Amino acid sequence: MAFGITAKKQSKFHDWYTQVVINAELLDYYDIRGCFIMRPNGMRIWKCIRDYFDEKIGEMGVEEAYFPMLVTKENIEKEKNHLANFNPELAWITRCGETELDQPVAIRPTSETIIYPAMSKWLTIHRDLPMKINQWCSVLRWEVKSTLPFIRGREFLWQEGHTAYYGKKDAEEECREILEIYAHIYEKLLAIPVVRGIKSKNETFGGAEYTLTIEAFIPGTGKGVQAATSHHLGQNFAKMFEIKVQDDVKQERLVYQNCWGLTTRSIGIATMIHSDDTGFMCGPRVANIQVVIILCGITSKKEEEEVSKLKKYAYFVEEKLKEHKIRVHVDIKEGQTAGFKFNHWELMGVPIRLEIGFRDMEKNEVCCARRDLGKNRKQLKVDNLVKEVQAEMDQMHMNLYEKAKAERDLRTKQVDTFDELLAELNNKNVVLAPWCNNSECEDEIGERTTIRENDEVVTQGGKTLCIPFEKPSSAGKMCVNCNKCAETYVLIGRSY
Amino acid sequence: MAFGITAKKQSKFHDWYTQVVINAELLDYYDIRGCFIMRPNGMRIWKCIRDYFDEKIGEMGVEEAYFPMLVTKENIEKEKNHLANFNPELAWITRCGETELDQPVAIRPTSETIIYPAMSKWLTIHRDLPMKINQWCSVLRWEVKSTLPFIRGREFLWQEGHTAYYGKKDAEEECREILEIYAHIYEKLLAIPVVRGIKSKNETFGGAEYTLTIEAFIPGTGKGVQAATSHHLGQNFAKMFEIKVQDDVKQERLVYQNCWGLTTRSIGIATMIHSDDTGFMCGPRVANIQVVIILCGITSKKEEEEVSKLKKYAYFVEEKLKEHKIRVHVDIKEGQTAGFKFNHWELMGVPIRLEIGFRDMEKNEVCCARRDLGKNRKQLKVDNLVKEVQAEMDQMHMNLYEKAKAERDLRTKQVDTFDELLAELNNKNVVLAPWCNNSECEDEIGERTTIRENDEVVTQGGKTLCIPFEKPSSAGKMCVNCNKCAETYVLIGRSY
Repeated sequence: MAFGITAKKQSKFHDWYTQVVINAELLDYYDIRGCFIMRPNGMRIWKCIRDYFDEKIGEMGVEEAYFPMLVTKENIEKEKNHLANFNPELAWITRCGETELDQPVAIRPTSETIIYPAMSKWLTIHRDLPMKINQWCSVLRWEVKSTLPFIRGREFLWQEGHTAYYGKKDAEEECREILEIYAHIYEKLLAIPVVRGIKSKNETFGGAEYTLTIEAFIPGTGKGVQAATSHHLGQNFAKMFEIKVQDDVKQERLVYQNCWGLTTRSIGIATMIHSDDTGFMCGPRVANIQVVIILCGITSKKEEEEVSKLKKYAYFVEEKLKEHKIRVHVDIKEGQTAGFKFNHWELMGVPIRLEIGFRDMEKNEVCCARRDLGKNRKQLKVDNLVKEVQAEMDQMHMNLYEKAKAERDLRTKQVDTFDELLAELNNKNVVLAPWCNNSECEDEIGERTTIRENDEVVTQGGKTLCIPFEKPSSAGKMCVNCNKCAETYVLIGRSY
Repeated sequence: MAFGITAKKQSKFHDWYTQVVINAELLDYYDIRGCFIMRPNGMRIWKCIRDYFDEKIGEMGVEEAYFPMLVTKENIEKEKNHLANFNPELAWITRCGETELDQPVAIRPTSETIIYPAMSKWLTIHRDLPMKINQWCSVLRWEVKSTLPFIRGREFLWQEGHTAYYGKKDAEEECREILEIYAHIYEKLLAIPVVRGIKSKNETFGGAEYTLTIEAFIPGTGKGVQAATSHHLGQNFAKMFEIKVQDDVKQERLVYQNCWGLTTRSIGIATMIHSDDTGFMCGPRVANIQVVIILCGITSKKEEEEVSKLKKYAYFVEEKLKEHKIRVHVDIKEGQTAGFKFNHWELMGVPIRLEIGFRDMEKNEVCCARRDLGKNRKQLKVDNLVKEVQAEMDQMHMNLYEKAKAERDLRTKQVDTFDELLAELNNKNVVLAPWCNNSECEDEIGERTTIRENDEVVTQGGKTLCIPFEKPSSAGKMCVNCNKCAETYVLIGRSY
């Protein structure tokens, strides 16, 4: 049941956000902390992302597989940097039925240590390459930090791609190609602008040579958020797991690997950016219900025959849209007013509402209200309805994207000095600053931008989000923190 | 790498079966016993089933969701019959990172106890019904019995549907409708005949009012195998989890529920039935690669220009098929003869092989070999290729189905006496026998058909597979075991 959103996005962002995700039935809490139930209104978004991504990587020759969720202690301990990252969060099964296990097994926090022993076994000769595998699954990380629906949970859904190449160049090309598909998921499906870039050493995935990333911006909190990552692993894991092939002259060669992942965090990011005080709003291309049809003007005075004619008209309109794969729902629930239904479906985030009254029927029209345009309405001819509805959805997509981009651009501040940097972070902006590209300096920036009260951290410090591919030249600039010669501009922000 | 199948289906069925699933790259072993890796050649079958099923249940208004994989002790203990079934196989997480949990949590063996508390919370009023939810996930059951790829594993993929209705009749209709979709998955996708029926009391799902089932037959072992089940739960779980709605006059009413599931066991069943001593074979509609194109007649004497022309022709043929969503692969790997490739792709179970040589190219033809027809080949005109290939696939589908059905029918023996029953089970058949429909009698049949040597069970006894919907009249018949008045005919078999 919908109870409406009482918190305001502007003043109480996190209360507002949790009200939206719960009341719009995207997700629900569960009686184990940090685990969430993904409800159909949220799950559809994930399905749209999945279908899109599967098609794109299918064209690249990536094949779907599924690996066990359990991993032995021995395998998970093979790559030390990797282990250090995940060890504190591993969930261990120690007992099955009444039997204590001799060797506890862990639930996957990610699957490198599960998949790479198999790759090592499967690959023999250079002709077996490239090998490109993707799986859709959930992973479990026993987070001790506070959890937040979609953004940080203990169990979450994702896809993880794992590929092996003979040549480094081919692997690196794929790593970038995947990043571009991720960016398109945000831009073309979710209507969200992202910055493409490379992570600093501190922020690189444990065991990777480098990590490519796309970063989004959440206006409500002024924070950056990592939207998806594509890692080039070089030959690091290949060494640990002995993933080799014979080359032309029967020499053994280590393969070059990538791995890449996108999670349901994407749904949280979309919700934070597009939704408003009325409720959920998202890119129309991924909405669970894209069009809702509501009958209007049905009073107790109306003859049954008239009402049944109006219903038929509504079903006729529904059928027209359905034929073109538009996800449409006719709300004929009894005992609720049209006004109640308007509010309900706005809260649920339906992009387009078609109101159908007796006069609309006479004129062979419907009255269209778009979720992003408030109270503005527009009459549409039924003869041309599919095209009109598709055009409205495209315009809504563009409108959401442009709005998000304008806000993001406005709140990305180019700075030269540390004082400016600190001021802009505190103004809930992210900054583009010249930087020496040094790990200790990054730690120092984090430390210096942390806000404490009585020795307690009240606001986390900023960190580097990424070194964007597109950025100003840093020639002649000094590092924003240590004043050494700047090597690059970097995007810095507080972040999720 | 493919090494070929050395065991014979006829004489060493289980060795043969494991060789097929491993060498055809459907699945691989993993270093935790009873957990298997699902490889792309097997995973595609699951994806085809998934897409088909999602479309069908989507039309019925079932929505996709995802629930956490963890369940608390308290919830899993709420339904006692249910608990008794699953308790011995539960895997418990007791430690996360370095911290011992106060309350261990279990991994789902199935999700009734995870989903029903949420349903109870979400449902308020009769208008909220029906509620229809499905999820695709893996479940974990720590089997102590010996495991068998796809057929019995500790972790396996499945879908589980959970629905709630106001009226019992509507719920029961859905229960049967879902069974029909499952039957169609076997008949129309996997080319396997199934018997639709209802389970005996002994074989009913723990906590259900009754269980509908489809049963398949494995000629190689003469065993029956449960192919999918749809359970009508009545109000049993609704009572335990307090799943109620208010009716028209504000009275609280318990809902009626169903749950239904299909697992990756289906892939194992398809493999066992259709594959042969050459390797994997399955229904062409679910094959990972449906058509493989192999270039022939390329010798070292051929000019490079000629070879490149032949390749172009192959890609042209590929493109034609791809446009019509046929999954096609051109094998241009170097260093392997055409003959080697023929064997490889037969082992892998590709339904249609198109051989393309220089003469074929001149005549604008291809030479087509079908996986189920051995060495027979057929010239196809490229102008009409899509239709021809689709027709060949349809014929192969029918051929596989008819062959399986003929064998199944031949080996389903109608018997009247226990001696006949025992003889037919020992002849690797299943039997249709008159039965009193009494649980103790069923136990006795199991006991009396068990084969022991030196007090050790060497062959499991038979059990009831189902009471088929379509069966002979049992009027005037006596129970095959206890000689009391028969209530029905029942299908009895040894089984997986």
